[in-house]
Amino acid sequence: MKQLTEKVLAFRDERDWKQFHNSKDLALSLVLEATEVLEIFQWKQDQAAIDGVALERKQDLADELADVFCYTLLMANDLGIDLAEALKTKIEKNSAKYPVDKAKGSDKKYTEL
Amino acid sequence: MKQLTEKVLAFRDERDWKQFHNSKDLALSLVLEATEVLEIFQWKQDQAAIDGVALERKQDLADELADVFCYTLLMANDLGIDLAEALKTKIEKNSAKYPVDKAKGSDKKYTEL
Amino acid sequence: MKQLTEKVLAFRDERDWKQFHNSKDLALSLVLEATEVLEIFQWKQDQAAIDGVALERKQDLADELADVFCYTLLMANDLGIDLAEALKTKIEKNSAKYPVDKAKGSDKKYTEL
Amino acid sequence: MKQLTEKVLAFRDERDWKQFHNSKDLALSLVLEATEVLEIFQWKQDQAAIDGVALERKQDLADELADVFCYTLLMANDLGIDLAEALKTKIEKNSAKYPVDKAKGSDKKYTEL
Repeated sequence: MKQLTEKVLAFRDERDWKQFHNSKDLALSLVLEATEVLEIFQWKQDQAAIDGVALERKQDLADELADVFCYTLLMANDLGIDLAEALKTKIEKNSAKYPVDKAKGSDKKYTEL
Repeated sequence: MKQLTEKVLAFRDERDWKQFHNSKDLALSLVLEATEVLEIFQWKQDQAAIDGVALERKQDLADELADVFCYTLLMANDLGIDLAEALKTKIEKNSAKYPVDKAKGSDKKYTEL
Repeated sequence: MKQLTEKVLAFRDERDWKQFHNSKDLALSLVLEATEVLEIFQWKQDQAAIDGVALERKQDLADELADVFCYTLLMANDLGIDLAEALKTKIEKNSAKYPVDKAKGSDKKYTEL
Repeated sequence: MKQLTEKVLAFRDERDWKQFHNSKDLALSLVLEATEVLEIFQWKQDQAAIDGVALERKQDLADELADVFCYTLLMANDLGIDLAEALKTKIEKNSAKYPVDKAKGSDKKYTEL
């Protein structure tokens, strides 16, 4: 991940784009890219239609997920957040919020368990 | 990243949640988590206010970015996408779309360069 | 709609909130409220589950749709856009993009018809 | 608003699109349209840039807000929600959550007032 972050930063620095990248606009861009992932599944309602479009547009999905990942890495870098550590910490928190014996097989929110 | 994906998958498998995770709902969840990052910056308009809230709520930002990363890893895994490769490929595509000599210091879309 | 816009503006003016409402933050808030509508349907996959939660949480849906509508009215007002006219114009544009004989019963984008 | 809802329903019925419009996909589409409004303000950071793009792209904003309004009307119709009533009710709730004497001139959430 360090190597990927460096690649993304090099791309940005070559274009002198850091000036546009305040955290609010990075967050805004993260949302825009995430909705481009979601748009691929618009109006696809049953499992077959969802799986079908996922297969048919796999390259588009890879591109859009890469965009999401790119902005995630940039935000984490600019805010001084270690993304790998943050994920491990969050999994621990979620493990406490959703204990296996209560959450197993349930789609309920932790507030309803 | 392989190790992180495994952690996320282990969390999901222990809770038997794969059944809820079709790609459409993962994409939907990715959007919801991305908007939770964005919400932190709502109504913050100048640079000082943006930087102030980013500092003050750094742990919340780490948690929300971790959620975004978590769903990105899950989707990539379920769709058979190598996220690191996808990012490298996307950077190459963007380098072609935004050549340094045209894009340097500009916030224009590639269609307007 | 004029009357509703006036109610929303009165609410804002009494609180002196116009100062926070630049168009970018109104658009951001519109997205946040729209995702609160969407969140209600997270993990609901078949028609019965979707209809079930829509019935069970009808008041929440009314509240969230009202928030979306509220920001839509505020943005239109601040930008000098007549929302009713804009909708009529957009329906005409969409009628041209999606002619009945081609679009009937199809979930394709106009670019694919 | 009744008249506008009828126009939108007529457009949908002529194309036999009701079959695609379950509430989840309408909510998803509402989010996608809201982000198209937001995208117009991406990377615009100071008030002059925000106002500039709002003026320059006023017709695009009218079109995107119309799309948001269209899905809001469709959802409300399908769910049996009276949108005008819902808005009035929500304004009353917000008036209680944000009393004028506490909220005036403040950008804080009601939980922090």
